[in-house]
Amino acid sequence: MSYRDELDTPCLVVDLDRLERNIAEIAAYARERGLAVRPHIKTHKTAEIARLQRQHGAVGFTCAKLGEAETLADAGVLDDVLLAYQIVGEQKIRRLLALMDRATVTVAVDSVEVAEGLSRGVRQAGKMLDVLIEVNTGLNRAGVEPGEPVLRLAREVVQMPGLRLRGLMTHEGHVARARDAEELAGIARRAGQDMVDSAELLRREGIPVEVVSVGSTPAAFYTTSVPGITEMRPGTYVFYDNASFRFGRIGPDRCALRILTTVISRPAADRAVIDAGSKTLTMDPPPPGRSGHGYIVEHPEAVIVRLSEEHGVVELPSSARGLRVGDRLEIIPNHVCPAVNLQDELFVVQGGRVIGTWPVLARGKVR
Amino acid sequence: MSYRDELDTPCLVVDLDRLERNIAEIAAYARERGLAVRPHIKTHKTAEIARLQRQHGAVGFTCAKLGEAETLADAGVLDDVLLAYQIVGEQKIRRLLALMDRATVTVAVDSVEVAEGLSRGVRQAGKMLDVLIEVNTGLNRAGVEPGEPVLRLAREVVQMPGLRLRGLMTHEGHVARARDAEELAGIARRAGQDMVDSAELLRREGIPVEVVSVGSTPAAFYTTSVPGITEMRPGTYVFYDNASFRFGRIGPDRCALRILTTVISRPAADRAVIDAGSKTLTMDPPPPGRSGHGYIVEHPEAVIVRLSEEHGVVELPSSARGLRVGDRLEIIPNHVCPAVNLQDELFVVQGGRVIGTWPVLARGKVR
Repeated sequence: MSYRDELDTPCLVVDLDRLERNIAEIAAYARERGLAVRPHIKTHKTAEIARLQRQHGAVGFTCAKLGEAETLADAGVLDDVLLAYQIVGEQKIRRLLALMDRATVTVAVDSVEVAEGLSRGVRQAGKMLDVLIEVNTGLNRAGVEPGEPVLRLAREVVQMPGLRLRGLMTHEGHVARARDAEELAGIARRAGQDMVDSAELLRREGIPVEVVSVGSTPAAFYTTSVPGITEMRPGTYVFYDNASFRFGRIGPDRCALRILTTVISRPAADRAVIDAGSKTLTMDPPPPGRSGHGYIVEHPEAVIVRLSEEHGVVELPSSARGLRVGDRLEIIPNHVCPAVNLQDELFVVQGGRVIGTWPVLARGKVR
Repeated sequence: MSYRDELDTPCLVVDLDRLERNIAEIAAYARERGLAVRPHIKTHKTAEIARLQRQHGAVGFTCAKLGEAETLADAGVLDDVLLAYQIVGEQKIRRLLALMDRATVTVAVDSVEVAEGLSRGVRQAGKMLDVLIEVNTGLNRAGVEPGEPVLRLAREVVQMPGLRLRGLMTHEGHVARARDAEELAGIARRAGQDMVDSAELLRREGIPVEVVSVGSTPAAFYTTSVPGITEMRPGTYVFYDNASFRFGRIGPDRCALRILTTVISRPAADRAVIDAGSKTLTMDPPPPGRSGHGYIVEHPEAVIVRLSEEHGVVELPSSARGLRVGDRLEIIPNHVCPAVNLQDELFVVQGGRVIGTWPVLARGKVR
């Protein structure tokens, strides 16, 4: 029986062949250039996909939150992790110390305050912690500015007992604001250059820099083209999503995760209601130039105009008005990572048949 | 120790006294007018709050999805439920039949197709199912139009073996589009009148209508003021949220749920980064007239301008620039229901101290 008839809806369906192709593509690119791949687990949050990434040569993983790393360590699939996050507060430092007993841990720092908190914690425990300085290459979230500010913080960090400064990291997520592939490539290369220049500045001042780490799926092939980048941390590339299409390289056929839904109401000729709302599709906005709350594979011209938690309201062009109650549709979400975070499991298909389910182990690990 | 220091962040904190006041207020209103209260569990998804609602006189509960009802039935707190949703497909009808063995179940129908599917299922199982016709009073989601279309569907449904038509229901959620309290009251009363008029039309045609059910927290005191409404189904009223403020009756002091967060980065004088992103606050937009991804209790003039999954970027007015790394802030979310759906537990406080945790049992039950 086809998975489209077998599965109850709404549910998230992963096509194993597409998934493996996506993982293999980045692995081959990185191997060719001598780059380390340290995937961000936020996109899939599963032990099974983490294992696939390791089989394809990933050196370790990136997590935002301690809870994600703890969960995957419990599952036996995580022994080397970058916490690409500022670890602040006594509760978290206690947990960090415990995690260090079972995995190689590196953490990001972007201020003296955060670094001092870590230094105090690990020193008291008699441990040494690897850190990377988080650099703001344009996203304007956390991170110190490239160049002199990185050097100033580095000079403080190398003095702090318990910390070992291994290098620099950035998340160049601002590439998503680009209008087209060319602009994206330019923004990504500037971010990469800022990282390499900052690393060189530190080295000239006698501070060794071993790791220069960047991460963003849309920028993956551009930021890393700057010589001197040592590591990439893509996340979304395992599945891709509606936001992946506009830069041209990725089409719906590369999207390994789709949301299977059912039409539950046809209250007007031009309106259908599906059983996936914001609790399934998320309220993440569409990428620039697109509209609606997801890409309907069977009817790309139909627009999911409105979501409530459990309902999606679809505006139907004349070509889609044959839709009936009970019909099933597949949707590529605007942003796949938070959609995965809403589910307890992913259904795995191959050749159109369900071959298993994978629990979303690290779902909801916000602490 | 105050919960603000004790709890790791980000986390959802429920003030028990505020919660009980909110529940008691609606209970008293309904008792005075002889209205049944059938709260929607989507806001809290917990057994403990369901129990409190029952203690305050709730006749039963409303769920959107079967999975929510199954979970609360498993917890022993649900024996009478309205599934305010179109139940479509064989998998769901099998589950509905199983649920009917352990609870009194009523379901919504808005088309002959959905009603026929239910009729076939329950007939084969030798059961009788109570149904309400879902009426579109202006939300333009599911539901048949008031008046004649309701009558037409009712005439079909009363012929269908296995179904017992008990009345009408609507969700007048479109009141949220009102610009002020007066407009809100007007929209709500029109919705209530449409429901009562439709019920009268059916009765004139000899079709008994026992239940006329409406549901929406902002409209709660208005739709139900129309004589002939028998039941209200508020959800958000247990906690309230940022969307509750603009109609005047509710202020931040009535909000029983706050999100406790920590400042993790202060990369610029006018920018703070908090450890709550879209995985905690959701991407639900602010209500009209407000901006940002939530209401910061300590600094209502600061704006959460941007979220990524685990970071909230806050723009600080000069009054808030004293914020430091490690400081804690409480946020009232734009929309509390999906924020609860992202968490495994709620932390319960009374008098500023943590007195327990409540698991969000029905979290993620999208099927």
